[in-house]
Amino acid sequence: MSGRLTASYFVTCPESDIQARAEAIASEQSVECPLEAITEQRILDEIVARVTSIAPAGPGRFRVEVAIAAQTIGANPVQFINMVFGNASLWDDVQFAGLDVPDDVLAMFPGPRHGIAGIRRLLGVPDRALTNAAMKPQGLHVPELAAMCRTFALAGVDIIKDDHGIDDQQYSPFVERVRACQAATAEALAATGKTALYAPNLIGTPRVLRERARIAREEGVRAVLIAPMLVGLPAFFDLVEEFPEFVYLAHPSFGGARHIAPELLFGRLMRLFGSDAVIFVNVGGRFGYTHETCAALAAGARSPWGNIRATLPVPAGGMRLERVEELLDFYGPDTMLLIGGNLLIDHARILDRTREFTNRVAAHRFSPASKA
Amino acid sequence: MSGRLTASYFVTCPESDIQARAEAIASEQSVECPLEAITEQRILDEIVARVTSIAPAGPGRFRVEVAIAAQTIGANPVQFINMVFGNASLWDDVQFAGLDVPDDVLAMFPGPRHGIAGIRRLLGVPDRALTNAAMKPQGLHVPELAAMCRTFALAGVDIIKDDHGIDDQQYSPFVERVRACQAATAEALAATGKTALYAPNLIGTPRVLRERARIAREEGVRAVLIAPMLVGLPAFFDLVEEFPEFVYLAHPSFGGARHIAPELLFGRLMRLFGSDAVIFVNVGGRFGYTHETCAALAAGARSPWGNIRATLPVPAGGMRLERVEELLDFYGPDTMLLIGGNLLIDHARILDRTREFTNRVAAHRFSPASKA
Repeated sequence: MSGRLTASYFVTCPESDIQARAEAIASEQSVECPLEAITEQRILDEIVARVTSIAPAGPGRFRVEVAIAAQTIGANPVQFINMVFGNASLWDDVQFAGLDVPDDVLAMFPGPRHGIAGIRRLLGVPDRALTNAAMKPQGLHVPELAAMCRTFALAGVDIIKDDHGIDDQQYSPFVERVRACQAATAEALAATGKTALYAPNLIGTPRVLRERARIAREEGVRAVLIAPMLVGLPAFFDLVEEFPEFVYLAHPSFGGARHIAPELLFGRLMRLFGSDAVIFVNVGGRFGYTHETCAALAAGARSPWGNIRATLPVPAGGMRLERVEELLDFYGPDTMLLIGGNLLIDHARILDRTREFTNRVAAHRFSPASKA
Repeated sequence: MSGRLTASYFVTCPESDIQARAEAIASEQSVECPLEAITEQRILDEIVARVTSIAPAGPGRFRVEVAIAAQTIGANPVQFINMVFGNASLWDDVQFAGLDVPDDVLAMFPGPRHGIAGIRRLLGVPDRALTNAAMKPQGLHVPELAAMCRTFALAGVDIIKDDHGIDDQQYSPFVERVRACQAATAEALAATGKTALYAPNLIGTPRVLRERARIAREEGVRAVLIAPMLVGLPAFFDLVEEFPEFVYLAHPSFGGARHIAPELLFGRLMRLFGSDAVIFVNVGGRFGYTHETCAALAAGARSPWGNIRATLPVPAGGMRLERVEELLDFYGPDTMLLIGGNLLIDHARILDRTREFTNRVAAHRFSPASKA
């Protein structure tokens, strides 16, 4: 813990201000006081963060690298977030852009317990791209949700998740729903011989998360949906530690968009805190990420990173059946495609449309040029 | 739970798009699927959120009000956040602006357990403005922190808090620090006859928060510093429930700035989740809020809101001794001024400068025109 990690930030300001802005970030993310208030040389040398690089990043925009002392973080993952992007999050002109973490600091994060390889083993799918469908809309009663779950499982979907708005409402109580949907996927397995995982949505304060995770475990659930920014990265971290048997599918709800670069938040931080798969809003859907952002996000989720397992990218947010081949060519086989409402638009043909989805994914031949 | 709450959003877009953008928010914050995928009239009538108002809010900017069904939220405070600002947080052109919550939904939030009146009772200060100082920089060892705590307490500061970067580092371990600083405030009480509260910083995953809260309780601590957005609003909610005896001083770290209007996040949401006092970055300091934002934030923290107790506004973020009178006239007496590094800039005169701080606050006479 004698070393430093590097956090980088995009800063929007005139060139004449950038040195001062960079120094302000370094102060804010370490001692957070005027340097003249510091009387000890040790603190100036060892504790104050240092600006190590300032580089242009477009007109009126700079990328600043700050070296933050590992001893200010210790082994607390929440203090890690505090020291890399605590008060600086309050500045409109600063975006948290990247992290370079030495192995001894990285060691506090076990990361995903299953990752891409673990998900593939659990599903018995060694190499093709994976499929994910969402039960929606909220408001449906449990028998209707279970019927939809059965339809998706019969159509060969790999992971079937609650919509992220489905909680424990009177119209679809948690316990009853989990039991019915687990039974539906078991029935489908008996009919098709193919494993599907039902992923209930866990949402609540830490106390409620633990209660529901225990229920899910008792019901034989192997995958759960959770929104780490909504329940809090720290509560997510504890949950993964206490229930390592679940595959955690991270949902972006309450994830904001501007202050943390999406490729960092969804590609790296979600992985660091233990997401086995990460849902993000894909280019061309209802949200606004670019191709570059999506490619960087997927690369961040999958690329080697110390001992941290790879996280499965799940492009989503308004995807349509017609785009399956384009998405697969863009993301390669270590991807799970999530199609939500688009499978449901013709109520009489949900099974057919979902079969078409899983068939097209299974039949796709990746060209040597596609990103794998 | 048959009613609706109203969430409002600022949306930046051309006038020709605003109707569609507003409908998109209503869909995203309720059923999150194309309306043609919904076959049940009950869901269309009762579950889908409705746009109830669109009003201009400056050039190319609109304020949109959306009525969200209370039954989609139930009694889960985390689902509350999910339904008022979950996926919509991912849109760059949308800012969460306000809430109007019916009493039966508000009932899930006990809010601050002490509030302004409780803090005043605990400190024995019925009407003057309150004072807050921060021990910094991190990196100091425990005896030095305890000496600083004693100095602040002798100078009459009401609440003395850890800097928000102080955790459980090797240079100032939590248990040792809490014990030493509690002893320092007790000594000062014996010397001055005046109560000062030491507020240690609680930071960690929910498990760690509970462990440290138990230690703090055993050591007689009555106030704690916590950053609700950093530890997660849900973990904060559970902690307040389990340890209602503490005064919770909310810190803005990791609070972002743009996607939730500051007056809503710091003035309302922090209060809703149980903050007795809320630190925010004041106009004219190191951060960029305007006078209007700060005034709205303080009003939101203090104004009547069902059975939710009032939260004490704590303007901070680079405040200087010279500004005491201006700040008091702006915020009125139900305020706690926080001066951090500025008390420390002349190391030989920390006691003198801090005495000047508390004396100026105590001596201030509010004009009838000041906001009270």
